[in-house]
Amino acid sequence: MDLISSRTNPKIKQVRLLRGRTARQAQKTPGLVVVEGLHPVGEAVAAAQAGKLALDSIIYAPDLLKSDFGLALVRAQSAAGLPCYPVTRQVFESVADKENPQGILAVARPKPYSLETLSPGNFPWGVALVAPQDPGNVGTILRTIDAVGASGLLLLDSSVDPYHPSAVRASMGALFWYPIARASFDDFAHWALLGGYTVYGTSARAATDYREFTAYQQPSILLLGSERQGLGEEQSAVCHHMLRLPMHGRGTSLNLAVAAGVMLYTMLE
Amino acid sequence: MDLISSRTNPKIKQVRLLRGRTARQAQKTPGLVVVEGLHPVGEAVAAAQAGKLALDSIIYAPDLLKSDFGLALVRAQSAAGLPCYPVTRQVFESVADKENPQGILAVARPKPYSLETLSPGNFPWGVALVAPQDPGNVGTILRTIDAVGASGLLLLDSSVDPYHPSAVRASMGALFWYPIARASFDDFAHWALLGGYTVYGTSARAATDYREFTAYQQPSILLLGSERQGLGEEQSAVCHHMLRLPMHGRGTSLNLAVAAGVMLYTMLE
Repeated sequence: MDLISSRTNPKIKQVRLLRGRTARQAQKTPGLVVVEGLHPVGEAVAAAQAGKLALDSIIYAPDLLKSDFGLALVRAQSAAGLPCYPVTRQVFESVADKENPQGILAVARPKPYSLETLSPGNFPWGVALVAPQDPGNVGTILRTIDAVGASGLLLLDSSVDPYHPSAVRASMGALFWYPIARASFDDFAHWALLGGYTVYGTSARAATDYREFTAYQQPSILLLGSERQGLGEEQSAVCHHMLRLPMHGRGTSLNLAVAAGVMLYTMLE
Repeated sequence: MDLISSRTNPKIKQVRLLRGRTARQAQKTPGLVVVEGLHPVGEAVAAAQAGKLALDSIIYAPDLLKSDFGLALVRAQSAAGLPCYPVTRQVFESVADKENPQGILAVARPKPYSLETLSPGNFPWGVALVAPQDPGNVGTILRTIDAVGASGLLLLDSSVDPYHPSAVRASMGALFWYPIARASFDDFAHWALLGGYTVYGTSARAATDYREFTAYQQPSILLLGSERQGLGEEQSAVCHHMLRLPMHGRGTSLNLAVAAGVMLYTMLE
């Protein structure tokens, strides 16, 4: 394929558009996401081979992509029929997320999930986050979901984009392998009730120390509030058990991904 | 005080220099760090009042600083005799870390700590990180150290700067309140042995599942390897107990701050 050297090439314009979440929300390119960097693209390719998502194309800059792993990946995908577009360094940098890009990105279409497709049968142990704002936290929590063998992630109300580059990096690829569904809090509450889920929440003001509680049962949801506000009253009311992680210092809360990690490993026991 | 409108003003040049770690390492301005943003500056002021660090000065942009909390803080510190320099928006933005800065930063001198000043008496339960590279992880671990009531942090070998803006933000101020000491791994190993510390390490290949181990004893150190490499053989050899966090998914490791969080809450039990 000819080297793309124009930043206004339609494919490049599409990628630039996809990098802004607004475009995706506006359904101009429904369901497509951009994944950048050697490890994330490698994980996306592996997930595609396992049927977890569909690849649309790969864009790479021969001037930047020096890794044998990356070059072999482009060759194999190109041979398998995936459109792989070589571009100049300047064009790649015009759509890259970071300085010093590794020179490879993929456009992919993750499987769409909604609450209706999830039930105790295929989603026995989920995490639900209310309006998380930090993409690094969302990615890190997906990495922990993978580690403990949980089922997937629900993003409630106005959540950050789980395909934000920081989320993709923090998840170490896990986000391609697990169901991620968006829903309103009310729809989630209804769904959890109908599904017979036990909902576990955390709060610094909860009466029960999490160390006193050991009777976790599935199907279960770990429900965590946003970084700034934690769980509100209405949200806590949906929980069957509200648990408190002890706080011995000046701070009144843990980092969201750390709280999720401590709780998920506790539920695993 | 007159509004500083020149980016080459000596105070402004000092702040710009301090923002690069190289300057601090080169001891041109030994021990000084820059702390930016309303919450971090508020925490630095509170820590200074508690004798945990010394404040050198505050720099603020009246055009940007609109928060009542921030303005009251500048008034109080100025009245107490701390040099507080008003600067133009342009000058502030020339030294600010982020876009849309809040218009306030402090230059501070944290207490210097070294291994020699730490012992089981004042440091019964520490975390030691080998060459951490992500400042967000270092800050998040300090936030968890505060939460569990641990003693402080040791940064071994070539660690990222704990006063990097991302570390300051992630720590939620905790880094001003706890001893942070740098050391070589060899000096740490010697110090831990002399102090009679029990050293706990983690590894995905360790024989003991961390859930099987409950006999944590102080004085203790939780020793964690770098994000990329974990603990090497030589480093594991220093540990009295190597523990494994179960990994049930595709990934082979947890986020460093999550691993620290799970272990610290386990050691608290």
